[in-house]
Amino acid sequence: MSKQILVFPGDGIGPEIVAEAVKVLEVANDKYALGFELSYDELGGAAYEKYGTPLADETLERARAADAILLGAVGGPQWDNLDRPLRPEMGLLKIRSQLGLFGNLRPALLYPQLAGASSLKPEIVAGLDILIVRELTGGIYFGSPRELRTLENGERYALDTLPYSESEIRRIAKVGFDMARLRGKKLCSVDKANVLESSRLWRAVVEEVAKDYPDVELSHMYVDNAAMQLVRAPKQFDVVVTDNMFGDILSDEASMLTGSIGMLPSASLDANNKGMYEPCHGSAPDIAGKGIANPLATILSVSMMLRYSFGQLEAADAIERAVGNVLDQGLRTGDIWSEGCQKVGTREMGDAVVAAL
Amino acid sequence: MSKQILVFPGDGIGPEIVAEAVKVLEVANDKYALGFELSYDELGGAAYEKYGTPLADETLERARAADAILLGAVGGPQWDNLDRPLRPEMGLLKIRSQLGLFGNLRPALLYPQLAGASSLKPEIVAGLDILIVRELTGGIYFGSPRELRTLENGERYALDTLPYSESEIRRIAKVGFDMARLRGKKLCSVDKANVLESSRLWRAVVEEVAKDYPDVELSHMYVDNAAMQLVRAPKQFDVVVTDNMFGDILSDEASMLTGSIGMLPSASLDANNKGMYEPCHGSAPDIAGKGIANPLATILSVSMMLRYSFGQLEAADAIERAVGNVLDQGLRTGDIWSEGCQKVGTREMGDAVVAAL
Ligand SMILES: CC(C)[C@H](C(=O)O)[C@@H](O)C(=O)O
Ligand SMILES: CC(C)[C@H](C(=O)O)[C@@H](O)C(=O)O
Repeated sequence: MSKQILVFPGDGIGPEIVAEAVKVLEVANDKYALGFELSYDELGGAAYEKYGTPLADETLERARAADAILLGAVGGPQWDNLDRPLRPEMGLLKIRSQLGLFGNLRPALLYPQLAGASSLKPEIVAGLDILIVRELTGGIYFGSPRELRTLENGERYALDTLPYSESEIRRIAKVGFDMARLRGKKLCSVDKANVLESSRLWRAVVEEVAKDYPDVELSHMYVDNAAMQLVRAPKQFDVVVTDNMFGDILSDEASMLTGSIGMLPSASLDANNKGMYEPCHGSAPDIAGKGIANPLATILSVSMMLRYSFGQLEAADAIERAVGNVLDQGLRTGDIWSEGCQKVGTREMGDAVVAAL
Repeated sequence: MSKQILVFPGDGIGPEIVAEAVKVLEVANDKYALGFELSYDELGGAAYEKYGTPLADETLERARAADAILLGAVGGPQWDNLDRPLRPEMGLLKIRSQLGLFGNLRPALLYPQLAGASSLKPEIVAGLDILIVRELTGGIYFGSPRELRTLENGERYALDTLPYSESEIRRIAKVGFDMARLRGKKLCSVDKANVLESSRLWRAVVEEVAKDYPDVELSHMYVDNAAMQLVRAPKQFDVVVTDNMFGDILSDEASMLTGSIGMLPSASLDANNKGMYEPCHGSAPDIAGKGIANPLATILSVSMMLRYSFGQLEAADAIERAVGNVLDQGLRTGDIWSEGCQKVGTREMGDAVVAAL
């Protein structure tokens, strides 16, 4: 039976990088007889322009029906002053939440070929390979009440709510432990249990889940310390599991340790491993349309899709090898370029990966 | 008229490092005829041992009456399993809130003598001098409701609340702008206005306050991007102003960029510049009592006290120069030691600063 892949090119550099990733996906589709059928729709600013909303109802239905989703990136300055519900990010938050994509995997991997790109000393980051598991559909991103009101004294007053239930914590903790089991067998759960009630419950539930994973070494760390330790000695981490807001901050910090955020893919999975796949970087409106953006993060997101949603490990590995191969050839887009390498554009980079595949 | 300084040695290495800072304070007191009178009390774990609570009522009254407070550090594993209200951190949070110490200044300064200690490449951090201004008495640290309850389906459920009022934001924004005016005239306000209501109000109020500071260049940054930019290019920042939780995370990240967190002081100020001064680092129970802790962050906290609470700029500068002087002499505690330098203990380091003064 055929598998449906819904593609959202998105905003900014999204369409350019997705075009290259789709080329790679189609080659893999033929070569490994994956039976994928691709269709396209819009999310974010592009959806606002087309439908007047960053996630149209019919788009959401198509997304529900799809087996996996590939996304470029959303957002841009032209939509920054829209009302909150109309802004591109709200399309992203809504699709995450409506599809139950609670498990966000964000690897921070240093490619040996790009070791020099990091702002950290080589000995601190050489061989870096961290996986941040971020809870993506709960916490302060979605808690209510959330409001802006005027107090009796005339002052404006705003509030957000950070809620977590046992089951929300349990399912993301399991993802963390499962990932740790497939990797270095070390899980660090990050919270602020010395201050937050939600973090105290988080820590308690993670401890309970740990009983089913005696082979995984569990540690707990406060978020402020984690932000420090990522800078001081990032290689101490294997898998990190944390809540939505802390995961947003720490995964961005961790990705920047590699110096090449243009290389990092991500996956957002539901309970059945249906997922949305997108690069970690944003829509980079400043370089949109110039044909210079790095498509490798999006291409590697395709590899994650094959691995996590379809169990096509051979095809997934082949794409990762092809990416390693083009780096070995010395091909670099501007963001990862260094002296002695050959600077290429978005399309050339995509073509090179296709050729290597 | 004499000025009252209340000293909390605190827990772990607190008493050792405070002893050295007090020596320096007393020399400055004599030399510059500051008229300081010192008295001592307990906060945190030490207070729990003495009074059965991490902040006794009579201690709080003495703190209210004092003109400034010097604190070592609080916390330790022996108190980690106490009920939340009895834990050392709660003494710290309570004194911050009860004394209205809303303005937390956390400099991240790279000493040229210690440039090699950073995990970042020298060219990325050379000359680094950032000031993080953290809101310290509001937001999710103190919001209510905060609770753990059992839902109808039997699940546990916890929540925290992140509230900010206009006046809370306005007063910390002013501190940010005032500090920027005294330094590089650049202020970056960090929030998550694309997701949080409290951040949208934060951004709006910061914009309003900016009208009174046309000479300061204001920018806004999302917290996830700020966590990245601190790693990528930290020298782009001068003063950063942000909320309690984001400030906790980003100030720890920023301090670690210097590689020598044993050197970094902090100030927590009320509306009248009365303040509590403490090192950025914690109580380091693992090395407590060994006489090897670095007292310089606490000594530099004394310098901040003289500067911010008492306007004694000459004495404050003299202490900073004395610290620079002992570093120039090549004296180093273990945490900042490197090949070719002379390793000294806590007391020798304190004595050297006194001698240099
Ligand atoms: C665009 C924004 C709402 C989003 C988030 O904070 O989750 C982004 O920063 C991310 O990490 O995917
Ligand atoms: C001990 C803890 C409650 C405290 C905080 O989070 O504020 C500490 O991390 C700090 O930054 O001073």
